[in-house]
Amino acid sequence: MPPSETPLTPERILEATEDVLRRYGPAKATVVDVARALGVSHGTVYRHFRTKAALREAVAVRWLAPEQGDLCVIAEDSGAAEERLRRWLGSLFEAKRRRAGEDPELFATFLALARENSDAVARHIAVLIGQLEVIVAAGIADGEFAADDAAATARALWHATARFHDPAHAHEWHAPETAADFDEVCALLLRGLRP
Amino acid sequence: MPPSETPLTPERILEATEDVLRRYGPAKATVVDVARALGVSHGTVYRHFRTKAALREAVAVRWLAPEQGDLCVIAEDSGAAEERLRRWLGSLFEAKRRRAGEDPELFATFLALARENSDAVARHIAVLIGQLEVIVAAGIADGEFAADDAAATARALWHATARFHDPAHAHEWHAPETAADFDEVCALLLRGLRP
Repeated sequence: MPPSETPLTPERILEATEDVLRRYGPAKATVVDVARALGVSHGTVYRHFRTKAALREAVAVRWLAPEQGDLCVIAEDSGAAEERLRRWLGSLFEAKRRRAGEDPELFATFLALARENSDAVARHIAVLIGQLEVIVAAGIADGEFAADDAAATARALWHATARFHDPAHAHEWHAPETAADFDEVCALLLRGLRP
Repeated sequence: MPPSETPLTPERILEATEDVLRRYGPAKATVVDVARALGVSHGTVYRHFRTKAALREAVAVRWLAPEQGDLCVIAEDSGAAEERLRRWLGSLFEAKRRRAGEDPELFATFLALARENSDAVARHIAVLIGQLEVIVAAGIADGEFAADDAAATARALWHATARFHDPAHAHEWHAPETAADFDEVCALLLRGLRP
Protein backbone atom coordinates (compact mmCIF):
# COMPACT_ATOMS: atom_id res chain seq x y z
CA MET A 1 0.00 0.00 0.00
CA PRO A 2 2.58 2.62 -1.06
CA PRO A 3 1.34 6.21 -0.71
CA SER A 4 0.76 7.61 -4.14
CA GLU A 5 3.21 10.26 -5.40
CA THR A 6 1.63 11.09 -8.75
CA PRO A 7 -1.77 12.83 -8.73
CA LEU A 8 -4.77 10.54 -8.61
CA THR A 9 -6.41 10.93 -12.03
CA PRO A 10 -9.53 9.10 -13.23
CA GLU A 11 -7.23 7.37 -15.70
CA ARG A 12 -5.04 5.97 -12.90
CA ILE A 13 -8.11 4.77 -11.02
CA LEU A 14 -9.41 3.02 -14.15
CA GLU A 15 -6.07 1.32 -14.73
CA ALA A 16 -5.98 0.11 -11.12
CA THR A 17 -9.58 -1.09 -11.41
CA GLU A 18 -8.76 -3.09 -14.55
CA ASP A 19 -5.87 -4.64 -12.69
CA VAL A 20 -8.03 -5.50 -9.66
CA LEU A 21 -10.78 -6.92 -11.87
CA ARG A 22 -8.25 -9.05 -13.61
CA ARG A 23 -6.76 -10.29 -10.35
CA TYR A 24 -9.93 -10.99 -8.35
CA GLY A 25 -12.53 -11.41 -11.11
CA PRO A 26 -15.59 -9.18 -11.57
CA ALA A 27 -17.63 -11.00 -8.91
CA LYS A 28 -15.17 -10.36 -6.08
CA ALA A 29 -13.41 -7.10 -6.97
CA THR A 30 -14.35 -4.21 -4.65
CA VAL A 31 -13.68 -0.48 -4.48
CA VAL A 32 -11.64 -1.15 -1.32
CA ASP A 33 -9.34 -3.39 -3.39
CA VAL A 34 -8.91 -0.58 -5.92
CA ALA A 35 -8.17 1.98 -3.19
CA ARG A 36 -5.64 -0.38 -1.58
CA ALA A 37 -3.88 -0.91 -4.92
CA LEU A 38 -3.57 2.88 -5.27
CA GLY A 39 -2.57 3.49 -1.64
CA VAL A 40 -5.56 5.78 -1.01
CA SER A 41 -8.80 5.53 0.98
CA HIS A 42 -11.92 4.25 -0.73
CA GLY A 43 -13.46 7.68 -0.04
CA THR A 44 -10.85 9.16 -2.37
CA VAL A 45 -11.86 6.77 -5.13
CA TYR A 46 -15.52 7.69 -4.57
CA ARG A 47 -14.67 11.37 -5.07
CA HIS A 48 -13.85 10.50 -8.70
CA PHE A 49 -16.48 7.80 -9.30
CA ARG A 50 -19.59 8.27 -7.20
CA THR A 51 -20.59 4.60 -7.10
CA LYS A 52 -19.02 1.23 -7.66
CA ALA A 53 -21.36 0.82 -10.65
CA ALA A 54 -20.14 4.11 -12.17
CA LEU A 55 -16.53 2.97 -11.80
CA ARG A 56 -17.23 -0.37 -13.44
CA GLU A 57 -19.14 1.26 -16.26
CA ALA A 58 -16.24 3.62 -16.92
CA VAL A 59 -13.93 0.59 -17.18
CA ALA A 60 -16.32 -1.04 -19.67
CA VAL A 61 -16.48 2.12 -21.78
CA ARG A 62 -12.68 2.42 -21.71
CA TRP A 63 -12.33 -1.18 -22.81
CA LEU A 64 -14.72 -0.79 -25.74
CA ALA A 65 -13.41 2.58 -26.99
CA PRO A 66 -10.25 1.63 -28.97
CA GLU A 67 -12.23 -0.48 -31.44
CA GLN A 68 -14.42 2.47 -32.32
CA GLY A 69 -11.51 4.74 -33.26
CA ASP A 70 -9.78 2.38 -35.69
CA LEU A 71 -13.07 1.53 -37.37
CA CYS A 72 -14.11 5.18 -37.56
CA VAL A 73 -11.03 5.92 -39.68
CA ILE A 74 -12.06 3.20 -42.14
CA ALA A 75 -15.70 4.33 -42.20
CA GLU A 76 -14.71 7.94 -42.94
CA ASP A 77 -12.07 6.93 -45.49
CA SER A 78 -12.45 7.73 -49.17
CA GLY A 79 -12.46 4.98 -51.80
CA ALA A 80 -14.85 2.30 -52.95
CA ALA A 81 -17.59 1.51 -50.43
CA GLU A 82 -17.37 -2.24 -51.02
CA GLU A 83 -13.67 -2.34 -50.25
CA ARG A 84 -14.20 -0.13 -47.21
CA LEU A 85 -17.04 -2.31 -45.93
CA ARG A 86 -14.99 -5.46 -46.29
CA ARG A 87 -12.07 -3.78 -44.54
CA TRP A 88 -14.29 -2.50 -41.71
CA LEU A 89 -15.84 -5.93 -41.08
CA GLY A 90 -12.44 -7.62 -41.33
CA SER A 91 -10.82 -5.14 -38.92
CA LEU A 92 -13.56 -5.59 -36.36
CA PHE A 93 -13.28 -9.38 -36.54
CA GLU A 94 -9.49 -9.20 -36.33
CA ALA A 95 -9.53 -6.81 -33.34
CA LYS A 96 -12.02 -8.97 -31.46
CA ARG A 97 -10.18 -12.16 -32.25
CA ARG A 98 -6.85 -10.69 -31.22
CA ARG A 99 -8.17 -9.39 -27.89
CA ALA A 100 -9.93 -12.67 -27.11
CA GLY A 101 -6.88 -14.72 -28.06
CA GLU A 102 -4.16 -12.70 -26.32
CA ASP A 103 -5.68 -13.00 -22.90
CA PRO A 104 -8.86 -15.11 -22.76
CA GLU A 105 -9.24 -14.59 -19.00
CA LEU A 106 -9.17 -10.82 -19.26
CA PHE A 107 -11.56 -11.04 -22.21
CA ALA A 108 -13.99 -13.08 -20.10
CA THR A 109 -13.68 -10.55 -17.27
CA PHE A 110 -14.53 -7.66 -19.53
CA LEU A 111 -17.31 -9.62 -21.14
CA ALA A 112 -18.91 -10.06 -17.71
CA LEU A 113 -18.42 -6.35 -17.07
CA ALA A 114 -19.93 -5.45 -20.43
CA ARG A 115 -22.98 -7.63 -19.74
CA GLU A 116 -23.52 -5.81 -16.46
CA ASN A 117 -23.27 -2.43 -18.24
CA SER A 118 -25.66 -3.06 -21.06
CA ASP A 119 -26.20 0.69 -21.66
CA ALA A 120 -22.51 1.17 -22.36
CA VAL A 121 -22.59 -1.80 -24.73
CA ALA A 122 -25.75 -0.57 -26.44
CA ARG A 123 -24.12 2.84 -27.02
CA HIS A 124 -20.99 1.15 -28.37
CA ILE A 125 -23.03 -0.97 -30.77
CA ALA A 126 -25.02 2.08 -31.90
CA VAL A 127 -21.74 3.86 -32.75
CA LEU A 128 -20.50 0.88 -34.75
CA ILE A 129 -23.79 0.44 -36.64
CA GLY A 130 -23.65 4.21 -37.33
CA GLN A 131 -20.23 3.69 -38.94
CA LEU A 132 -21.63 0.90 -41.12
CA GLU A 133 -24.44 3.24 -42.13
CA VAL A 134 -21.89 5.88 -43.24
CA ILE A 135 -20.26 3.32 -45.55
CA VAL A 136 -23.59 2.02 -46.90
CA ALA A 137 -24.93 5.54 -47.50
CA ALA A 138 -21.72 6.47 -49.36
CA GLY A 139 -22.09 3.34 -51.50
CA ILE A 140 -25.71 4.22 -52.31
CA ALA A 141 -24.75 7.81 -53.16
CA ASP A 142 -22.04 6.56 -55.56
CA GLY A 143 -24.37 4.01 -57.18
CA GLU A 144 -22.12 1.23 -55.91
CA PHE A 145 -24.80 -0.20 -53.61
CA ALA A 146 -28.52 -0.53 -54.31
CA ALA A 147 -30.04 -0.68 -50.80
CA ASP A 148 -33.24 1.28 -50.13
CA ASP A 149 -32.57 2.07 -46.50
CA ALA A 150 -29.00 2.63 -45.33
CA ALA A 151 -29.88 2.37 -41.61
CA ALA A 152 -31.78 -0.93 -41.98
CA THR A 153 -29.00 -2.32 -44.17
CA ALA A 154 -26.36 -1.31 -41.63
CA ARG A 155 -28.31 -3.12 -38.89
CA ALA A 156 -28.67 -6.20 -41.11
CA LEU A 157 -24.91 -6.21 -41.80
CA TRP A 158 -24.23 -5.95 -38.08
CA HIS A 159 -26.55 -8.80 -37.13
CA ALA A 160 -25.52 -11.03 -40.05
CA THR A 161 -21.89 -10.82 -38.89
CA ALA A 162 -22.64 -11.47 -35.20
CA ARG A 163 -20.68 -14.70 -35.31
CA PHE A 164 -17.55 -12.66 -36.08
CA HIS A 165 -17.87 -9.91 -33.51
CA ASP A 166 -20.18 -10.97 -30.70
CA PRO A 167 -18.07 -12.15 -27.73
CA ALA A 168 -20.53 -15.03 -27.25
CA HIS A 169 -18.77 -16.60 -30.25
CA ALA A 170 -15.21 -15.97 -29.02
CA HIS A 171 -14.61 -19.70 -28.50
CA GLU A 172 -15.09 -20.26 -32.28
CA TRP A 173 -12.81 -17.49 -33.54
CA HIS A 174 -9.59 -19.45 -33.59
CA ALA A 175 -11.06 -22.55 -35.26
CA PRO A 176 -9.27 -23.13 -38.59
CA GLU A 177 -12.46 -22.85 -40.68
CA THR A 178 -13.63 -19.54 -39.20
CA ALA A 179 -11.61 -17.30 -41.54
CA ALA A 180 -13.15 -19.04 -44.57
CA ASP A 181 -16.62 -18.79 -42.97
CA PHE A 182 -16.07 -15.06 -42.58
CA ASP A 183 -15.09 -14.66 -46.24
CA GLU A 184 -18.16 -16.61 -47.39
CA VAL A 185 -20.52 -14.52 -45.27
CA CYS A 186 -18.90 -11.26 -46.49
CA ALA A 187 -19.16 -12.37 -50.12
CA LEU A 188 -22.88 -13.17 -49.74
CA LEU A 189 -23.61 -9.89 -47.95
CA LEU A 190 -21.72 -7.79 -50.50
CA ARG A 191 -23.57 -9.55 -53.33
CA GLY A 192 -26.79 -8.46 -51.62
CA LEU A 193 -25.71 -4.82 -51.73
CA ARG A 194 -24.79 -4.60 -55.41
CA PRO A 195 -27.32 -3.04 -57.80
CA MET B 1 -37.48 -46.39 -5.71
CA PRO B 2 -40.49 -48.31 -7.11
CA PRO B 3 -39.51 -51.52 -8.95
CA SER B 4 -40.15 -51.03 -12.62
CA GLU B 5 -43.10 -52.90 -14.16
CA THR B 6 -42.74 -51.85 -17.80
CA PRO B 7 -39.68 -53.07 -19.71
CA LEU B 8 -36.59 -50.91 -19.46
CA THR B 9 -36.15 -49.49 -22.96
CA PRO B 10 -33.42 -47.02 -24.02
CA GLU B 11 -36.24 -44.52 -24.51
CA ARG B 12 -37.31 -44.81 -20.86
CA ILE B 13 -33.71 -44.43 -19.69
CA LEU B 14 -33.32 -41.29 -21.81
CA GLU B 15 -36.53 -39.83 -20.41
CA ALA B 16 -35.38 -40.52 -16.87
CA THR B 17 -31.97 -39.02 -17.65
CA GLU B 18 -33.58 -35.83 -18.98
CA ASP B 19 -35.59 -35.63 -15.81
CA VAL B 20 -32.54 -36.15 -13.58
CA LEU B 21 -30.51 -33.62 -15.56
CA ARG B 22 -33.28 -31.12 -15.19
CA ARG B 23 -33.57 -31.73 -11.45
CA TYR B 24 -29.88 -31.83 -10.47
CA GLY B 25 -28.27 -29.91 -13.33
CA PRO B 26 -25.70 -31.34 -15.74
CA ALA B 27 -22.78 -30.88 -13.31
CA LYS B 28 -24.28 -33.02 -10.53
CA ALA B 29 -26.49 -35.60 -12.29
CA THR B 30 -25.10 -39.14 -12.09
CA VAL B 31 -25.98 -42.54 -13.54
CA VAL B 32 -26.87 -43.66 -10.00
CA ASP B 33 -29.52 -40.90 -9.89
CA VAL B 34 -30.93 -42.16 -13.19
CA ALA B 35 -30.97 -45.77 -11.97
CA ARG B 36 -32.66 -44.73 -8.73
CA ALA B 37 -35.35 -42.80 -10.65
CA LEU B 38 -36.04 -45.95 -12.69
CA GLY B 39 -35.91 -48.31 -9.69
CA VAL B 40 -33.06 -50.35 -11.20
CA SER B 41 -29.36 -50.81 -10.45
CA HIS B 42 -26.83 -48.62 -12.23
CA GLY B 43 -25.43 -51.79 -13.79
CA THR B 44 -28.77 -52.19 -15.59
CA VAL B 45 -28.48 -48.69 -17.03
CA TYR B 46 -24.90 -49.45 -18.15
CA ARG B 47 -26.17 -52.49 -20.09
CA HIS B 48 -28.01 -50.03 -22.38
CA PHE B 49 -25.50 -47.17 -22.38
CA ARG B 50 -21.94 -48.34 -21.83
CA THR B 51 -20.67 -45.10 -20.31
CA LYS B 52 -22.08 -42.02 -18.65
CA ALA B 53 -20.74 -40.02 -21.62
CA ALA B 54 -22.65 -42.26 -24.08
CA LEU B 55 -25.86 -41.75 -22.09
CA ARG B 56 -25.44 -37.99 -22.03
CA GLU B 57 -24.63 -37.89 -25.72
CA ALA B 58 -27.80 -39.87 -26.49
CA VAL B 59 -29.81 -37.30 -24.54
CA ALA B 60 -28.19 -34.46 -26.52
CA VAL B 61 -28.95 -36.20 -29.84
CA ARG B 62 -32.56 -36.79 -28.75
CA TRP B 63 -32.92 -33.15 -27.79
CA LEU B 64 -31.61 -31.88 -31.12
CA ALA B 65 -33.52 -34.31 -33.36
CA PRO B 66 -37.06 -32.78 -33.52
CA GLU B 67 -35.79 -29.59 -35.16
CA GLN B 68 -34.23 -31.55 -37.99
CA GLY B 69 -37.47 -33.29 -38.96
CA ASP B 70 -39.66 -30.21 -39.29
CA LEU B 71 -37.00 -28.39 -41.27
CA CYS B 72 -36.37 -31.39 -43.50
CA VAL B 73 -40.00 -31.25 -44.63
CA ILE B 74 -39.56 -27.61 -45.65
CA ALA B 75 -36.22 -28.27 -47.39
CA GLU B 76 -37.69 -31.13 -49.42
CA ASP B 77 -40.89 -29.23 -50.22
CA SER B 78 -41.72 -28.11 -53.74
CA GLY B 79 -42.32 -24.46 -54.60
CA ALA B 80 -40.17 -21.36 -54.95
CA ALA B 81 -36.73 -21.68 -53.36
CA GLU B 82 -36.80 -18.15 -51.96
CA GLU B 83 -40.05 -18.73 -50.12
CA ARG B 84 -38.81 -22.09 -48.86
CA LEU B 85 -35.54 -20.59 -47.65
CA ARG B 86 -37.33 -17.83 -45.79
CA ARG B 87 -39.71 -20.39 -44.26
CA TRP B 88 -36.83 -22.69 -43.26
CA LEU B 89 -34.89 -19.88 -41.55
CA GLY B 90 -38.05 -18.57 -39.89
CA SER B 91 -39.05 -22.03 -38.61
CA LEU B 92 -35.62 -22.66 -37.15
CA PHE B 93 -35.62 -19.30 -35.36
CA GLU B 94 -39.17 -19.85 -34.12
CA ALA B 95 -38.41 -23.37 -32.83
CA LYS B 96 -35.27 -22.20 -31.02
CA ARG B 97 -37.01 -19.19 -29.54
CA ARG B 98 -39.96 -21.26 -28.37
CA ARG B 99 -37.80 -23.88 -26.70
CA ALA B 100 -35.59 -21.26 -25.04
CA GLY B 101 -38.62 -19.28 -23.86
CA GLU B 102 -40.80 -22.10 -22.59
CA ASP B 103 -38.28 -23.37 -20.12
CA PRO B 104 -35.06 -21.33 -19.95
CA GLU B 105 -33.59 -23.57 -17.23
CA LEU B 106 -34.05 -26.74 -19.27
CA PHE B 107 -32.67 -24.92 -22.32
CA ALA B 108 -29.55 -23.98 -20.34
CA THR B 109 -29.19 -27.57 -19.15
CA PHE B 110 -29.30 -28.93 -22.66
CA LEU B 111 -27.01 -26.21 -23.90
CA ALA B 112 -24.40 -27.34 -21.35
CA LEU B 113 -24.98 -30.92 -22.48
CA ALA B 114 -24.66 -29.93 -26.14
CA ARG B 115 -21.35 -28.13 -25.45
CA GLU B 116 -19.99 -31.25 -23.83
CA ASN B 117 -21.07 -33.36 -26.84
CA SER B 118 -19.62 -31.25 -29.59
CA ASP B 119 -19.60 -34.17 -32.05
CA ALA B 120 -23.37 -34.56 -31.73
CA VAL B 121 -23.79 -30.82 -32.25
CA ALA B 122 -21.41 -30.81 -35.23
CA ARG B 123 -23.42 -33.64 -36.86
CA HIS B 124 -26.67 -31.77 -36.17
CA ILE B 125 -25.30 -28.58 -37.75
CA ALA B 126 -24.02 -30.54 -40.75
CA VAL B 127 -27.54 -31.95 -41.28
CA LEU B 128 -29.09 -28.49 -41.11
CA ILE B 129 -26.52 -26.93 -43.46
CA GLY B 130 -27.18 -29.87 -45.79
CA GLN B 131 -30.87 -28.93 -45.82
CA LEU B 132 -29.98 -25.32 -46.68
CA GLU B 133 -27.82 -26.66 -49.50
CA VAL B 134 -30.80 -28.61 -50.89
CA ILE B 135 -32.84 -25.40 -51.05
CA VAL B 136 -30.00 -23.33 -52.55
CA ALA B 137 -29.21 -26.00 -55.17
CA ALA B 138 -32.91 -26.18 -56.15
CA GLY B 139 -32.97 -22.38 -56.49
CA ILE B 140 -29.84 -22.46 -58.69
CA ALA B 141 -31.32 -25.24 -60.85
CA ASP B 142 -34.51 -23.20 -61.35
CA GLY B 143 -32.61 -20.02 -62.17
CA GLU B 144 -34.11 -18.40 -59.08
CA PHE B 145 -30.72 -18.05 -57.35
CA ALA B 146 -27.39 -17.10 -58.90
CA ALA B 147 -24.88 -18.56 -56.42
CA ASP B 148 -21.79 -20.33 -57.81
CA ASP B 149 -21.36 -22.83 -55.03
CA ALA B 150 -24.44 -24.20 -53.24
CA ALA B 151 -22.43 -25.70 -50.37
CA ALA B 152 -20.47 -22.49 -49.65
CA THR B 153 -23.67 -20.45 -49.91
CA ALA B 154 -25.47 -22.77 -47.50
CA ARG B 155 -22.63 -22.36 -45.00
CA ALA B 156 -22.73 -18.58 -45.43
CA LEU B 157 -26.51 -18.54 -44.82
CA TRP B 158 -26.01 -20.62 -41.69
CA HIS B 159 -23.29 -18.40 -40.24
CA ALA B 160 -24.98 -15.14 -41.24
CA THR B 161 -28.08 -16.17 -39.27
CA ALA B 162 -26.18 -17.34 -36.16
CA ARG B 163 -27.80 -14.63 -34.07
CA PHE B 164 -31.17 -16.29 -34.73
CA HIS B 165 -30.30 -19.91 -34.05
CA ASP B 166 -27.15 -20.15 -31.96
CA PRO B 167 -28.13 -20.74 -28.31
CA ALA B 168 -25.41 -18.27 -27.29
CA HIS B 169 -27.89 -15.59 -28.42
CA ALA B 170 -30.93 -17.01 -26.62
CA HIS B 171 -31.05 -14.08 -24.21
CA GLU B 172 -31.72 -11.72 -27.15
CA TRP B 173 -34.48 -13.71 -28.84
CA HIS B 174 -37.39 -12.24 -26.92
CA ALA B 175 -36.26 -8.61 -27.26
CA PRO B 176 -38.95 -6.65 -29.14
CA GLU B 177 -36.62 -5.63 -32.00
CA THR B 178 -35.30 -9.12 -32.74
CA ALA B 179 -38.12 -10.10 -35.12
CA ALA B 180 -37.45 -7.00 -37.23
CA ASP B 181 -33.69 -7.70 -37.11
CA PHE B 182 -34.39 -11.19 -38.43
CA ASP B 183 -36.49 -9.84 -41.32
CA GLU B 184 -33.79 -7.33 -42.26
CA VAL B 185 -31.06 -9.98 -42.27
CA CYS B 186 -33.23 -12.35 -44.36
CA ALA B 187 -34.02 -9.61 -46.86
CA LEU B 188 -30.31 -8.79 -47.32
CA LEU B 189 -29.33 -12.45 -47.66
CA LEU B 190 -32.09 -13.19 -50.18
CA ARG B 191 -31.06 -10.14 -52.21
CA GLY B 192 -27.57 -11.65 -52.33
CA LEU B 193 -28.93 -14.86 -53.86
CA ARG B 194 -30.95 -13.34 -56.70
CA PRO B 195 -29.42 -13.32 -60.17
